[in-house]
Amino acid sequence: MNPRLIGKIIGGALEAEAVFMLLPIACAYCYSESMKPFLIPMAVAAGLGFFLIKFSDHDQDLVSKEGFISTGLTWIALSLVGMLPFIISGAITDPVEAFFETVSGFTTTGATILTDVEAVPHSVLMWRSFLHWIGGMGILVFMAAIMHFASGSQINLVKAESTGPIVSKLVPKAGGTAKVLYAIYTFMTAIVLTILLLLRMPLFDAICHTFGAAGTGGFGVLNDSVASYTIAQQAVLNIASISFGVSFTIYFLILVGKPLTAFKNEELRAYLIIILTASLLITIDLINQSGIAAAGNPLMVFHRALFAVGNIITTTGSAIEDCNLWPNFSQGILMLLMICGACAGSTGGGFKVSRIIIMLKAFNKEMAVHLRPEIVKKIHMDGKPVNDTVIRNIGTYCFLGCFIMVISILLVSLDGKDWIDTISAVLATFNNVGPGFGINGTMGNYHEYSTFSKIVLSADMLIGRLEIYPILALFKRDTWRKF
Amino acid sequence: MNPRLIGKIIGGALEAEAVFMLLPIACAYCYSESMKPFLIPMAVAAGLGFFLIKFSDHDQDLVSKEGFISTGLTWIALSLVGMLPFIISGAITDPVEAFFETVSGFTTTGATILTDVEAVPHSVLMWRSFLHWIGGMGILVFMAAIMHFASGSQINLVKAESTGPIVSKLVPKAGGTAKVLYAIYTFMTAIVLTILLLLRMPLFDAICHTFGAAGTGGFGVLNDSVASYTIAQQAVLNIASISFGVSFTIYFLILVGKPLTAFKNEELRAYLIIILTASLLITIDLINQSGIAAAGNPLMVFHRALFAVGNIITTTGSAIEDCNLWPNFSQGILMLLMICGACAGSTGGGFKVSRIIIMLKAFNKEMAVHLRPEIVKKIHMDGKPVNDTVIRNIGTYCFLGCFIMVISILLVSLDGKDWIDTISAVLATFNNVGPGFGINGTMGNYHEYSTFSKIVLSADMLIGRLEIYPILALFKRDTWRKF
Repeated sequence: MNPRLIGKIIGGALEAEAVFMLLPIACAYCYSESMKPFLIPMAVAAGLGFFLIKFSDHDQDLVSKEGFISTGLTWIALSLVGMLPFIISGAITDPVEAFFETVSGFTTTGATILTDVEAVPHSVLMWRSFLHWIGGMGILVFMAAIMHFASGSQINLVKAESTGPIVSKLVPKAGGTAKVLYAIYTFMTAIVLTILLLLRMPLFDAICHTFGAAGTGGFGVLNDSVASYTIAQQAVLNIASISFGVSFTIYFLILVGKPLTAFKNEELRAYLIIILTASLLITIDLINQSGIAAAGNPLMVFHRALFAVGNIITTTGSAIEDCNLWPNFSQGILMLLMICGACAGSTGGGFKVSRIIIMLKAFNKEMAVHLRPEIVKKIHMDGKPVNDTVIRNIGTYCFLGCFIMVISILLVSLDGKDWIDTISAVLATFNNVGPGFGINGTMGNYHEYSTFSKIVLSADMLIGRLEIYPILALFKRDTWRKF
Repeated sequence: MNPRLIGKIIGGALEAEAVFMLLPIACAYCYSESMKPFLIPMAVAAGLGFFLIKFSDHDQDLVSKEGFISTGLTWIALSLVGMLPFIISGAITDPVEAFFETVSGFTTTGATILTDVEAVPHSVLMWRSFLHWIGGMGILVFMAAIMHFASGSQINLVKAESTGPIVSKLVPKAGGTAKVLYAIYTFMTAIVLTILLLLRMPLFDAICHTFGAAGTGGFGVLNDSVASYTIAQQAVLNIASISFGVSFTIYFLILVGKPLTAFKNEELRAYLIIILTASLLITIDLINQSGIAAAGNPLMVFHRALFAVGNIITTTGSAIEDCNLWPNFSQGILMLLMICGACAGSTGGGFKVSRIIIMLKAFNKEMAVHLRPEIVKKIHMDGKPVNDTVIRNIGTYCFLGCFIMVISILLVSLDGKDWIDTISAVLATFNNVGPGFGINGTMGNYHEYSTFSKIVLSADMLIGRLEIYPILALFKRDTWRKF
């Protein structure tokens, strides 16, 4: 364990955060708003970062353990500094609520405690949405792309922050992989922004919502989320979210001229089939419930269904209507999609489609072995054999995810809220979706939960985004020994 | 695949069921009730059983595959014949409801669709509770104990029907193990019955409730479950349930003079600690909610808490009060215990304590390996190393259990009931608990669910009791090939 190396990483991340604050400062300048809410935290981040880097150890190699611990600590440190603009601007007065909102931003959850978003200064809203973009691809992946580390260090950073069961490098070097990822990410962000501007969305709204769609976080700038935009704008935002929920490996494959390999990807196919099936089922359920005449144009109903499905499965969480009014079956499908989540290696959250595919295949194999113990069967994914260790890891991950969610539900139940409020709050934060059902529904917020619950849910967001290990590692005694 | 061998097993089970019907017939004689509801199904079971055995193949060895398929088919066949007394007596007129009630009995779930239990004839209630006793230890385990099979067959039957991650033989031969299990089971049942009679519980009530406690199923004979019995009687029933939720290996160890090994058992210790902790937490929550003065004697509150905890964790499901009126936190604990379940190798259901222990240890190991990839770490349970395959199997089992529950919740949500009704119905049936929360709560029933939901929940009870594979194997194409 090398605390000075970990210090270098946290310090570097804080420096980066200081630079990122230039954007809301520019926004404050344009809208003639106070820059103080950003100048102070910028100074704090820059100063603290400088101090940490100055006393750091440059030439040591980062081992796996330090990768995990740095990741956990960095995300907490960035959130603690990132929440200052909310407090200083007066947009959020309670520190726990400010922390909740910031964590919700970085983890691309999009769960808010604000009851009136439109009363918040533009620059603060810009910062809030920018958090989604920063957290989407990952702050340590960003650092692996721009900073110099001893060889072998970068992969341990990228590994600890990336999502999904198997982390693969796109190019031989981890630093190179990180650079490619950020290049694709920035390029796609620019495309979405351009299209939204062509569709005449106001610049400010377009930038904020592009950040949200890119990071698959659901912070909006209007009280009705995205309900008041045109259908074309809504559809573009939805397709953008769905695209950012696809593994970036797919885009890399297309980029290097292997579109066929990309489209043969099993996870991509399953992801698109799930989206289509869920949207059709909800469309039928909605028409069924209200009668064909009352439901209106079936295509419009499909648009509404697809919007909800796309925004939930990618764990973005924007909304064009209050899904609490939908029939239970449709709500049930959305809840299922919350857990399912997007593709591994995307900016989306949840359990990830590839984990589900592997586990269903594993079950199939177990069943075959149960029936005929003498046979030997291997699981394959995209033509490659899947190691038994991977299956064991996913099983443990699945068990632990359920365990953490159940304990969280128990803790939040101390608030005495309706079960749907309690359960959906945990599902929506642990899986980084944002809105749930009940009071925290698509048109609701998390303001009414107790301070204790907000802390539990903040922890859930961090644990869910970093896929359990980096945060829980901080609570292991073994981690803090042998300094 | 040998259909004539499978026929022998189903036939034997039906013959046994016919013999078991002598008990309710005796009961009908005592209460001067009609014997017709049992004589007809008895003839059906005996005739069908005779026919199947006559054309069966005696000398072949039963392979693993056939063990699973026989188990699945036997449980369905027994339920189809076992539901006839309900229909013929007129106690339940709808065949789906009668099937639900019978499956609920055999799987020791104890979920009922009856709205007025006291209006049902004594003999039918006796049969209903007797189903718990028959299903508790397992009908195929019973057959392995009394029938002659080629060597190697018995273990495949016992394996397919037993619960928990690792099935171990108590004595070298599987048939011997089955005999020992049934001997302990019968002896313990007799003890509970004797104590209840000494406490002056009426004979009929005592027999029915003893069957329930032994099988850890919650069918009662009064509309208020066991609320109107004395506190001593309630406490005995509760302790009986908790005792039957302990692995029978423990009793075997005590029997052969190894009490120390028995008490060192990790699962037993965890099970008792969970029961005690949960009861204390609920006691505090109940006193906290209503104030010390209103809550009354703290010991009495603890009795109420322990009763609920004991009856839920063992998945018995009897009740002395309506837990819907309890604060959310207490309800949350009970929901958690529903999933947790009792010990492996007991008559209780749920995920099983030993699976949870192994998975928490597996997580601890994963975490250590994540932090320091170079280390090699082994998991131990009761001093013995746990194979990686076992961990992988439990992970797959956990994933699949969640998957089936989530799909079931989605299907039951088509009823449009409250989420708590929908979710708790699935949790309570899949884990063989019986009552849930909401309309199917401790003082409620399953009458109001749609026919479709009742079929889904019946399937959940069977899948949960037989731990997934034997039932799902019936739906695999591969199973039906190569006859």
